[in-house]
Amino acid sequence: MSTQDNWYIERFEPTGSAIGYRVEAKLDEVQSPFQKIEIYRTTDWGNLMLIDGAVMLTSRDNFLYHEMISHPVLFTHAAPKRVVIIGGGDCGTLREVLKHPGVESATQCDIDEQVTRMAEKHFPELCDSNDDPRAELLFDDGVAYMANCPAGSVDVVIVDSTDPVGPAEGLFNKDFYASCFRALKDDGILVQQSESPLAQLELIKAMRAEMGKAGFSTFKTLPFPQPCYPTGWWSVTLARKGQGFDFREGDAQAKAFETRYYTAHLHQGVLVAPPFVAQALAE
Amino acid sequence: MSTQDNWYIERFEPTGSAIGYRVEAKLDEVQSPFQKIEIYRTTDWGNLMLIDGAVMLTSRDNFLYHEMISHPVLFTHAAPKRVVIIGGGDCGTLREVLKHPGVESATQCDIDEQVTRMAEKHFPELCDSNDDPRAELLFDDGVAYMANCPAGSVDVVIVDSTDPVGPAEGLFNKDFYASCFRALKDDGILVQQSESPLAQLELIKAMRAEMGKAGFSTFKTLPFPQPCYPTGWWSVTLARKGQGFDFREGDAQAKAFETRYYTAHLHQGVLVAPPFVAQALAE
Repeated sequence: MSTQDNWYIERFEPTGSAIGYRVEAKLDEVQSPFQKIEIYRTTDWGNLMLIDGAVMLTSRDNFLYHEMISHPVLFTHAAPKRVVIIGGGDCGTLREVLKHPGVESATQCDIDEQVTRMAEKHFPELCDSNDDPRAELLFDDGVAYMANCPAGSVDVVIVDSTDPVGPAEGLFNKDFYASCFRALKDDGILVQQSESPLAQLELIKAMRAEMGKAGFSTFKTLPFPQPCYPTGWWSVTLARKGQGFDFREGDAQAKAFETRYYTAHLHQGVLVAPPFVAQALAE
Repeated sequence: MSTQDNWYIERFEPTGSAIGYRVEAKLDEVQSPFQKIEIYRTTDWGNLMLIDGAVMLTSRDNFLYHEMISHPVLFTHAAPKRVVIIGGGDCGTLREVLKHPGVESATQCDIDEQVTRMAEKHFPELCDSNDDPRAELLFDDGVAYMANCPAGSVDVVIVDSTDPVGPAEGLFNKDFYASCFRALKDDGILVQQSESPLAQLELIKAMRAEMGKAGFSTFKTLPFPQPCYPTGWWSVTLARKGQGFDFREGDAQAKAFETRYYTAHLHQGVLVAPPFVAQALAE
């Protein structure tokens, strides 16, 4: 991590690869009880948020991640009404979720209120649905929130967390997944960001194994480009209580809201994993 | 560009973003008449080739690029027999092209013999089809080669070049495209690597405009992940003399060779551009 010559470079040890941006100015910094949050203005990518030195998002490319963690799962569930987002403090996922008119309530539970406060200041476009009457913003421990959730009360759980170290470590194991499983209705779906499909297949396998121990029986990992994360290629993994992933393709085609990356055609295109991924995950 | 702390970081000025790798050792270096070629051994990505400081390929992720610059165009042309590769000195594209049993001859014309010599030493797996009797390896100026190509003699031209600066600059303009147009048969297709679909849409638009001035009438830009190139998201652009891009989906499904990323399903999935790309390219 350095900003020499006005470049911020994140060297990501687990993948042996680095991503960086040319920055113009440091706009903000706060040390919350959980982590250090920094905001830079870049020359080409708008604003940049770092958490403990790890790139979280840029203004320019966050739409890829936020669309892909939201729309595939919501167009897979037959009729998602009650959605819980664990993490997601920048509010970009909440905004995408609330584009679905059938969603009746969406609770975002991030442990760190400062992430949301920084997003409101430096990524206001991501927060423009925070006043939606269907939205509830909590700043609390997501592990405890899911453990205390009434059984069978939730249609979709979205785990929009940081990497599985630090505050997010507890969101990648059987106990947490068991709470999600219990909170979900019988046709409920869990979706979680699942790191790089090229460089972190072992992590995806481990996540699926933990989800399986918690009772989930069907899995689907969807890849998408995400330039600001290690390797520039990212994924979400869906886990279902029941069998199968019946994509509501017609509804996705007919959606009444705009997206910049997600389309029904693209969703259909990633339902079959690339051969090297399928082989590694024994799909 | 620096290798401090055993990390090689490429700061890419046009996109204001950087990509890097943790390296263990420098294995080789040669200054050819055209450019400086360096080889490093990385901790996680196998060997790494740099040309004038720009990351060209790694052992681990080059299959993405080589498959996507070869198979989509070859499964779009009705019956590709005669293929010309301009650039492509690492021989990885040639290898993919020769997997198609219908290809009768494939000429690779790279201006710099040293790229191929370095590939033979440090990426031997990419060169394992160089002795195929259908393969011809030339070390010559690709602009002149296409200008001297008999008219109407080629089914597919693949421009597998470096960025549009330095030796490759002449491969991104109307004059070169006019040579390709002339050399192609009436149903011929040109395909060229076309940089980042997120950060370099203006370049893709400019390329298409030059191709159009040369007579090409139909275009298709296909995105794919490529971690070692700026933004980690890359593209190829197909340009056709005639109309339409009739994907031979059945043949792609029934292909008798293995791929690690490319599938007929994936090819189908990228035929519709993401909305932000379609909008920028006015598709």
